[in-house]
Amino acid sequence: MARTLARKLIDDHLVDGEPVAGHEIGLRVDQTLTQDATGTLVMQELEALGLDRAKTEVSVQYVDHNLLQADEKNAEDHAFLRSACRRYGLWFSKAGNGVSHPTHMQRFGKPGRTLAGSDSHTCAGGSLGMLAIGVGGLEVALAIAGEPLHLRMPEIWGVRLTGSLPEWVSAKDVILELLRRHGVRGGVHRILEYHGPGLAGLTAMDRHVIANMGAELGATATVFPADDAVRAFLRAEDREADFTELAADEGATYDVEDEIDLGSLEPLVAKPSSPGNVVPVREAAGTPVDQVVLGSSANPGFRDFAVAAAIVKGRQTADSVSFDVNPTSRQILVDLTRAGHVADLVAAGARIHQTGCLGCIGMGQAPAPGQTSLRTFPRNFPGRSGTTDDAVWLCSPETAAASALTGVLTDPRGYAADHDLAHPDLTPPARSAVNTGMLAEPLPAEEAAREELVKGPNISGLPEFDALPDRLEAPVLLVVGDDVSTDEISPAGARALPFRSNIPKLAEFTFTRIDEDYPRRAAETGAHFVVAGSNYGQGSSREHAAITTRHLGLRAVLAVSFARIHGQNLVNFGVLPLEFADEGDRGRISAGDTLVLDGLRDALGGGELTVRNTTRDEEYRVTHRLSERQVEAVLAGGRIPLLART
Amino acid sequence: MARTLARKLIDDHLVDGEPVAGHEIGLRVDQTLTQDATGTLVMQELEALGLDRAKTEVSVQYVDHNLLQADEKNAEDHAFLRSACRRYGLWFSKAGNGVSHPTHMQRFGKPGRTLAGSDSHTCAGGSLGMLAIGVGGLEVALAIAGEPLHLRMPEIWGVRLTGSLPEWVSAKDVILELLRRHGVRGGVHRILEYHGPGLAGLTAMDRHVIANMGAELGATATVFPADDAVRAFLRAEDREADFTELAADEGATYDVEDEIDLGSLEPLVAKPSSPGNVVPVREAAGTPVDQVVLGSSANPGFRDFAVAAAIVKGRQTADSVSFDVNPTSRQILVDLTRAGHVADLVAAGARIHQTGCLGCIGMGQAPAPGQTSLRTFPRNFPGRSGTTDDAVWLCSPETAAASALTGVLTDPRGYAADHDLAHPDLTPPARSAVNTGMLAEPLPAEEAAREELVKGPNISGLPEFDALPDRLEAPVLLVVGDDVSTDEISPAGARALPFRSNIPKLAEFTFTRIDEDYPRRAAETGAHFVVAGSNYGQGSSREHAAITTRHLGLRAVLAVSFARIHGQNLVNFGVLPLEFADEGDRGRISAGDTLVLDGLRDALGGGELTVRNTTRDEEYRVTHRLSERQVEAVLAGGRIPLLART
Repeated sequence: MARTLARKLIDDHLVDGEPVAGHEIGLRVDQTLTQDATGTLVMQELEALGLDRAKTEVSVQYVDHNLLQADEKNAEDHAFLRSACRRYGLWFSKAGNGVSHPTHMQRFGKPGRTLAGSDSHTCAGGSLGMLAIGVGGLEVALAIAGEPLHLRMPEIWGVRLTGSLPEWVSAKDVILELLRRHGVRGGVHRILEYHGPGLAGLTAMDRHVIANMGAELGATATVFPADDAVRAFLRAEDREADFTELAADEGATYDVEDEIDLGSLEPLVAKPSSPGNVVPVREAAGTPVDQVVLGSSANPGFRDFAVAAAIVKGRQTADSVSFDVNPTSRQILVDLTRAGHVADLVAAGARIHQTGCLGCIGMGQAPAPGQTSLRTFPRNFPGRSGTTDDAVWLCSPETAAASALTGVLTDPRGYAADHDLAHPDLTPPARSAVNTGMLAEPLPAEEAAREELVKGPNISGLPEFDALPDRLEAPVLLVVGDDVSTDEISPAGARALPFRSNIPKLAEFTFTRIDEDYPRRAAETGAHFVVAGSNYGQGSSREHAAITTRHLGLRAVLAVSFARIHGQNLVNFGVLPLEFADEGDRGRISAGDTLVLDGLRDALGGGELTVRNTTRDEEYRVTHRLSERQVEAVLAGGRIPLLART
Repeated sequence: MARTLARKLIDDHLVDGEPVAGHEIGLRVDQTLTQDATGTLVMQELEALGLDRAKTEVSVQYVDHNLLQADEKNAEDHAFLRSACRRYGLWFSKAGNGVSHPTHMQRFGKPGRTLAGSDSHTCAGGSLGMLAIGVGGLEVALAIAGEPLHLRMPEIWGVRLTGSLPEWVSAKDVILELLRRHGVRGGVHRILEYHGPGLAGLTAMDRHVIANMGAELGATATVFPADDAVRAFLRAEDREADFTELAADEGATYDVEDEIDLGSLEPLVAKPSSPGNVVPVREAAGTPVDQVVLGSSANPGFRDFAVAAAIVKGRQTADSVSFDVNPTSRQILVDLTRAGHVADLVAAGARIHQTGCLGCIGMGQAPAPGQTSLRTFPRNFPGRSGTTDDAVWLCSPETAAASALTGVLTDPRGYAADHDLAHPDLTPPARSAVNTGMLAEPLPAEEAAREELVKGPNISGLPEFDALPDRLEAPVLLVVGDDVSTDEISPAGARALPFRSNIPKLAEFTFTRIDEDYPRRAAETGAHFVVAGSNYGQGSSREHAAITTRHLGLRAVLAVSFARIHGQNLVNFGVLPLEFADEGDRGRISAGDTLVLDGLRDALGGGELTVRNTTRDEEYRVTHRLSERQVEAVLAGGRIPLLART
């Protein structure tokens, strides 16, 4: 039978289960990536697991999130991560080397391999024909330890691309178009696989843009074929030997199908405060803009900065605009600098920031209250910028640059026409400035075994969690709506993120974007429930959103549905994710109600349970999508207690 | 009579008093500069003064300190400052345009002019033959309003330079040599005036390095002649028309004299945690270094980065080192980028940060506990890096770059000899990349009058302060040692600085580096004394150190001596600065003692007062150095209440 590329990648790595949509499968993991915000926990988990040495082909720890170092805690984490990499045989990418996704693509991405990463945008790796999946930190720790990655077999969603992009329209507009059509839940439990003649016009880095924001659709992964564009990319990275041609079989069919005529696209923008609020730029053109930011893993490539530089070259950005530029990898920064683009950006008024994620995860660059910020980032969840009630818009580098010049949201096609701006040649250098000087190789095993972990005073151990009781009677402490993101559960940003290695301290920020008083109430109450809508826990993969809530006493979430990574993270740390059988029941429960779940051990085997609301004297049927393996984990209080028991 | 250049500058601007050392004089102020950390208060003071339009030739507001924007407060300040510049007819230098001192030198510095700045390193302007003085914010606000600047006439200290600097030794080593010889109090109540044949080998930017760190000697100002080097600098900046030749008269004599044979100098380093702890690099060579930072107004020039780039070019900085580079002005960044130096720095492992002060004022780049940080900065006061118990060393760019490569403190002469490194040609471009696109001109008066101040929710008004009572009976809340800096009184850094426009909130950080409990005790106690040693309030000019202590109830400080700017700031906000007549008495007072000052109104006129310690039944004679004008101000509760009264 003709197979899709996604299916081939799965078949090649299948160690457990049947690849039938909805069934649990286990996959061999070839590569892992971790970043510093999630990585400190992963390293503590490796320690808790008693690992001697990484069992994957390649495992890389990047430092790209917490770079501001407003006090000693971030540098302390960097030192801890470096020591853990030396101890466990991981690669270590120093602060300043680059954002994990483009850097991994440049130095390690390899067609045909699986990649598990503790960052939701790990899916960007699909641009090279990898099966790249963002998961919780504990999944990555287990993968590093040689365990398979378990997930529910997704549907394969074929997106056929035809035509070619018009001038001033770029890859970002392709993924924004999919978000416009399908919203932030459109890709849930699906792998997106792009195919068709339109691919020929998209470089590997263009595909990275599209694959990256598959996360915003809620997709499990995004897969592109490994074709000539991938070969050219690897050649420029001095790694042509890592190329293998990969594509779907002729005549392969998809579970779901969609098509985009690239030639019909126009510049799009996601309005505040969801990546799914997409409209054409022309519909909102003229909105005053106070800040414009280029960068992030959603627009990381040479081209993305070069096109902006070409637009602003010889011009000045508007007096009222802060024009912030975040390079994404040091290699790309060197290439851009040597090609003259950096000088052009600075001369036009850019603030060039250090290489890293920065404002994309709320580490700096927060706009003033009431200001509008236009960014080439993947996400604009409420408050993620660091400013309460922020107004963040997402767009392409072309739209960003034109708007930085005018000070209002501007369609780059119109700007080019009005200013006789010819579309620039954006060919990246045939050979990138390959330089691995900030990427430390794993130490030889004998040397590694002698390394000590460097733990500063702000690095706590993992809290220990007890087993789930058979009868759970507890109040509902919080009722939230649809699409609540992990940013709202456990905020990133410069205030909270430095505590990422200190769960009790970080827990004080839990849910504070929604309810400032939650941490206090939870600490007083102990065991409790949270009730939520659809797609609960979308966004960042950070497992802190599960650990901190669990630390504060959360034992079960009743939701209409869960985002994939967060649902798994809840299980990993012993919180029960339950779905309403009847969506309407969700509105019947109020904060303060007392709920009872009885005979949990038996009931979880059956698939359907009854929740009793003793405050209102009502009952609701709830279901779960847990595999046997997951039921066992959640009953044990999480996967670490479960492993400790065996 | 043959006059020194400093005396000529004073004579040309004298509007009040006799220029006899120790006597109060009033000077006309031609130019002012403010930066954002001090400037928000200055703008609130302009508002309190009811100013319509700046009366100076040039007044510029720079945004260089608070650039991280970890939450909305910094961007809110930037918007407020922009609106205030538009309202009051000031120049506005946007975030990203550069650090005030080098940027002011490039765009506005003019031989023969006076410059008052609310930043202690304003003295850097002396590199162009200006009389440039760092003062408290209120002094600057009054200067903008057309008032003369009052100060005690300093002694003139002639420093004769002979010979020329050896290879790998640079301007930073000249000022470190003076600090080695004279310590951080060596320049108190003095103007340093450099002269002699050694000047010929120092560019205007080299002189900036030396003039800048006159602040670390405690000097009132530093003056260099305006000669061919200054002309060449202004020519490169497209401002040759602003040049006037200026020098001391032949045969002028100085109150104090010193001489440095430049040829005899070697690389020097200031050890933690004072700029006065200077030793030759060779004496501490081999000390492991974890972080190296280039930048700040102490080493801001093209040459300073270019020499470091030349040293690291084609090499890799040590695996264990974070190599941070802070460009100081966007013009210099463009020049460095076009000359290829930025690409060389990045390729060698540099984290290139946005243009600004950053780590120099503790805004990011804090090292981990136990790490050693080597910086080209001017200051290493305890904790100023953002890390408690930090270990910050100060050195030249040559020493910094060589050490970044080896990972240990390294004498650049030895490194060059061992690696056959030829001393590079460091000629800056004959024409700098002059670009004023981030520097907004003052609005025309009519338009300015219609502008509204943009005040976000985090911008409080100035607190109102009452008059000093005639009898003061209050406890001593804190006894501190010598050389306590304003960083220890009112910490900078990423936690505190964002509250610089909110005095009640900022006050919660007062003295916490010395005594965590001070803010609580002070808030409970109200009126109180602080007892200190020599040079109390050295370092940054921030008037917050006076305002927050006053807000918490501080009414008088008894010290052995006061740093110039802080002493004046105390007066400006109604705190009485008293000096022990007998230095030995300082040790007789303990925290908790109750002191009484009686008949203050009369006693202050006389010059000597008696303090009664009722706890120990002792009396101490104290003096003050206040002019009549200052006595009046402090009795009124500060200069704003005094002005309000007239």
